[in-house]
Amino acid sequence: MAVKLYSFWRSLATYRVRIAMALKGVVPDEIVTIDLTKGDQHGDAYAAVNPMHALPALVDGDGPPLVQSLAIIEYLDETRPQPPLLPAAPRGRARVRSLALMVAADAHPLMVPRVREYLENELGIPEADRTQWCRHWVRTALVALETRLAGESETGRFCHGDTVTLADICLVSQVAGAGFYEVDTTSFPTVRRIAEACSAVEAFATAHPLRQPGAPGAA
Amino acid sequence: MAVKLYSFWRSLATYRVRIAMALKGVVPDEIVTIDLTKGDQHGDAYAAVNPMHALPALVDGDGPPLVQSLAIIEYLDETRPQPPLLPAAPRGRARVRSLALMVAADAHPLMVPRVREYLENELGIPEADRTQWCRHWVRTALVALETRLAGESETGRFCHGDTVTLADICLVSQVAGAGFYEVDTTSFPTVRRIAEACSAVEAFATAHPLRQPGAPGAA
Repeated sequence: MAVKLYSFWRSLATYRVRIAMALKGVVPDEIVTIDLTKGDQHGDAYAAVNPMHALPALVDGDGPPLVQSLAIIEYLDETRPQPPLLPAAPRGRARVRSLALMVAADAHPLMVPRVREYLENELGIPEADRTQWCRHWVRTALVALETRLAGESETGRFCHGDTVTLADICLVSQVAGAGFYEVDTTSFPTVRRIAEACSAVEAFATAHPLRQPGAPGAA
Repeated sequence: MAVKLYSFWRSLATYRVRIAMALKGVVPDEIVTIDLTKGDQHGDAYAAVNPMHALPALVDGDGPPLVQSLAIIEYLDETRPQPPLLPAAPRGRARVRSLALMVAADAHPLMVPRVREYLENELGIPEADRTQWCRHWVRTALVALETRLAGESETGRFCHGDTVTLADICLVSQVAGAGFYEVDTTSFPTVRRIAEACSAVEAFATAHPLRQPGAPGAA
């Protein structure tokens, strides 16, 4: 079955899906670039794919487009079970999902293009304050992640024990966001340690935004 | 095993968990009120429960607090499988989860207290514009939900076929948010029809914010 991914190098939600695909060994047959800096996501063509005008979207075979990064990753985990991205026990699954949602629901939606555009165009917020807005929410989530990861006994080499889970995928996207907005991460040693452990895993490295077509410095 | 829920009548994320608990027949042994209007969520006591300072949190027996509404609901679904809140097939599960995330990730995090407080205190946004902000994001999600629900063949009496799923729980919380911010929902007939079908289900009715202790007009 052909796999088609709607993607943009800088989209952190797409980055999460790319990591999951790479971990599962799913190579997309087609990558459609939706240039968020040119507003491609607002066009009629993409609206038919995702009425929320957001990346990513994944077409798996003859099915309709799948949207929402966490829903896509759970789908990949259910249809390509190896390696599993969630632990087996319900409490562990709840912990991993909650760490993931701290990034994908509580933090990231506050700094996507449509929100930055509203701050600029509807509220007239200057660029410096918009950047500060993004930094604030990046930091808020990092503080909460660090508190939990440093304090909870389930934390291991990765967020949950010694194997990669959905939580690590989201943590890494959050750290990439910190990089985009030049947020200092020295106060978050556990988050940094886990992000470094992830970057040693090939699937994380190849999925990195700066290694995608169109990224500054990419081939 | 004793079940303890950290709750506030107006919290839409807690509303989602209350619906799921009611559908599963899980009656909390203890409800701890965290008054968001008094800033209880910022206190040290609650920070130890959820470092993200957000509701809800659920303690199930001797386990640590579970946080993040969608992670809690998936946990309830895995530990109390009847009635199921997700369909069996991966594509259906992905569809339901993606509809849920359009509410719980793309829309709701933009209007929680910490965001409204930042708009007011850090950016000096006047009350009228803050209300407009909330209405805009409520509407944006309703437009996308209506487009998908009206256009996709899987929609039935409820969001996905004729049984209640996680998507309905989130849709109903979104419609309640529209009520809080007085957003006109007449342009969203499919959303309204499904919300009305849900309100006929006892678990949805008893879980409604306005029927909780502390709510205006509540007993």
